[in-house]
Amino acid sequence: MRMYDIIRHKRDRMALTPEEIRFFVQGYAAGEIPDYQASALLMAVFLNGMNDDETVAMTSEMLHSGQVLDWSDLEQVKVDKHSTGGVGDKTSLILAPIAAAAGVAVPMISGRGLGHTGGTLDKLESIPGFQVQLEADKFRRVLTTTGLVLAGQTGEIAPADKKLYALRDVTATVESIPLICSSILSKKLAEGIDALVLDVKMGSGAFMKRQQDAQALARALVSIGQRAGKRVVALLTDMEQPLGTHVGNSLEVMESVEVLQGKKEGDLAELSFELAAHMLVLGRVAEDLAAARRRVHELVNKGAAFRKLQEVVAAQGGDARALEDFTRLPNARRQQALVAPRRGYVQRVDAEGVGVAAMCLGAGRATVDDEIDPAVGVVLHAKVGAAVEQGSALATIYYNDPARLEEARQRLEAAFELADEAPPPRRLISQVIE
Amino acid sequence: MRMYDIIRHKRDRMALTPEEIRFFVQGYAAGEIPDYQASALLMAVFLNGMNDDETVAMTSEMLHSGQVLDWSDLEQVKVDKHSTGGVGDKTSLILAPIAAAAGVAVPMISGRGLGHTGGTLDKLESIPGFQVQLEADKFRRVLTTTGLVLAGQTGEIAPADKKLYALRDVTATVESIPLICSSILSKKLAEGIDALVLDVKMGSGAFMKRQQDAQALARALVSIGQRAGKRVVALLTDMEQPLGTHVGNSLEVMESVEVLQGKKEGDLAELSFELAAHMLVLGRVAEDLAAARRRVHELVNKGAAFRKLQEVVAAQGGDARALEDFTRLPNARRQQALVAPRRGYVQRVDAEGVGVAAMCLGAGRATVDDEIDPAVGVVLHAKVGAAVEQGSALATIYYNDPARLEEARQRLEAAFELADEAPPPRRLISQVIE
Repeated sequence: MRMYDIIRHKRDRMALTPEEIRFFVQGYAAGEIPDYQASALLMAVFLNGMNDDETVAMTSEMLHSGQVLDWSDLEQVKVDKHSTGGVGDKTSLILAPIAAAAGVAVPMISGRGLGHTGGTLDKLESIPGFQVQLEADKFRRVLTTTGLVLAGQTGEIAPADKKLYALRDVTATVESIPLICSSILSKKLAEGIDALVLDVKMGSGAFMKRQQDAQALARALVSIGQRAGKRVVALLTDMEQPLGTHVGNSLEVMESVEVLQGKKEGDLAELSFELAAHMLVLGRVAEDLAAARRRVHELVNKGAAFRKLQEVVAAQGGDARALEDFTRLPNARRQQALVAPRRGYVQRVDAEGVGVAAMCLGAGRATVDDEIDPAVGVVLHAKVGAAVEQGSALATIYYNDPARLEEARQRLEAAFELADEAPPPRRLISQVIE
Repeated sequence: MRMYDIIRHKRDRMALTPEEIRFFVQGYAAGEIPDYQASALLMAVFLNGMNDDETVAMTSEMLHSGQVLDWSDLEQVKVDKHSTGGVGDKTSLILAPIAAAAGVAVPMISGRGLGHTGGTLDKLESIPGFQVQLEADKFRRVLTTTGLVLAGQTGEIAPADKKLYALRDVTATVESIPLICSSILSKKLAEGIDALVLDVKMGSGAFMKRQQDAQALARALVSIGQRAGKRVVALLTDMEQPLGTHVGNSLEVMESVEVLQGKKEGDLAELSFELAAHMLVLGRVAEDLAAARRRVHELVNKGAAFRKLQEVVAAQGGDARALEDFTRLPNARRQQALVAPRRGYVQRVDAEGVGVAAMCLGAGRATVDDEIDPAVGVVLHAKVGAAVEQGSALATIYYNDPARLEEARQRLEAAFELADEAPPPRRLISQVIE
């Protein structure tokens, strides 16, 4: 078998065989196939596509290029959630404890933030003492004793995907549905899960800007995940504006705690609870979605979900008291309010703009090597549809370094758009695909 | 400007700007753009195409990446011919002396053979003493004194094309019309010519197997060449069977001499004279094609064309007497006849099969580092349409190494197809595009 012929086949719109896909993925991961041949194939795949068989084979090969966790000795069903990423998206911190409290095992492996979107690991690390890098033994112990674990990779998860993703990133071949599917699913399936809930974001702050693209991605993820033998559900959700009100690491932990304690309503609570309910159904601890929703509210209202978060934080070395006493979390030394320049309705709060503003303050990374400041960020006081008076607060900026304020402030200001008329309402969850 | 955006634009079917094409070609030639980005762009170009503006810009950038010869001090019009390559194609050796004898300047830079097709330089080198590698001074002196020069590259011609072609060769991006056009034309325009006659081959022995592909390539070459300010004509010619009867280096020199002396008729003479006539018209030494054809025959019949070949051979250090006394050329020590296994008509003489047979004998290279044997090859005695009796000679194999005979023989045998009925006649020149 020759890589040249594999490129030629895809170039000529042929479906690749499982053997060809294995030859490519294994050969590329082993450094036997050069980057220039891999990138030619990636562009051919981008432009000519891959069918479900090819995508399943690609997922499987990337999955088996590295460590695959095995929890077959655990009685519970293993379920995780994956989001395609957005601004203010801290649902993981809320739904994982809920699902674990309900009896689902959640072996959640997360990543760090880059650009205008945050990362779950960064948020967790704002809790003093919290360890996200666990040895394999410790990872297993936390999962078996608490029912969930919130960590970074223990071994090498899907190294072929990592290498291919780096190449796609510099050859304009990222936004390909079969390649995105195999990349996401190979990493998630390496967690040894039985089922997966997908939160596919759409809108200006999301990777997929248009509804039809997000829909196509969600459908493909569900189809390929199911073909790989997993139970998979995808929710199509809005990312025109940030999710919830807090953007920035310790600020997002605070907001998550409030939602988990049942103290805060709104889009974040609504979406987190709904995703959790789907996890309960897939995890076979609820008969149907209605029962699952009741169970979620019960776990929240009775404090069981919050206690589960405290439990896992303690198990991973974190200061669990900080979840009840936010002065123990990193807090920014300075604040500044952004006020409405006129009376009107909030027409738009650009998610990407808010994310970039928080990044400017130090909440996120422009490049992978940047240090982040866990305390800084933005809290929104008015979201889309809110009626505001001239001079009323739109947002508060939490900052430490005055030199970083101005750019963040300008970006945040530009993210808000006011108008005379109330905007048409947007649906938070527009579709469920299963 | 970023290479990433250039790839993305072509991926999204946008036309690249001249600045983008310059950035790519110059950056790649300079080693500043990595192979993996170049190959992603090449695949995007392969699948999404390039318009004429883009192809003209690409040609120009590749042309100016290296030396461009300048003959503006020469009075004559500078004209060359380029063939897309075939088996037994030795028209260069015939038409170049004819055109030079008619007063056209022919600064012909040729290459070596690879695979089943031969190279003009290899054929010329079978003439004892003939020098194909000339210093720039010598190149100019031969051209100005004899009106033609038959040589390899003097300086670095289109190095960007050389580097890109090597990458295309291993990434399945060779067969792209805009890329082929810019590759061919950048190298030919570097010769400093005013006009170009193109011989675009089609058929089983050619790069373009199908008429519509050859047609599309010919049209694009003419259009891009004209857009680059040159007078260009393309002939679409048959390459189902070898051109002429001799395949192998010194054998092809012998056949060329016979045609040039007016002693041999047939497809080789017909095509060579017609290509030469077009060169005379483009070179403005004949008023129209009819006048050019008369002039070609006159130059051949009066011996002026043959004397011009003798002249250039002598000027380049070759033994001009070898052109009249073939015993002075390399001759194979052994011969074997291939005879017809039955009575019938020759239905097919597969050009590629004959070329590979000659290569097996040592007439060509399987890889660029192979040594060739100038004496060996094949002479066909029956071409498509010929009626043969059982046992009559189809071809003679000229060989030196008995160990190489058997495979060559089998391949040659397989190249011949006999049938009861005469095949429909094929047109040697099916179209002229200008």
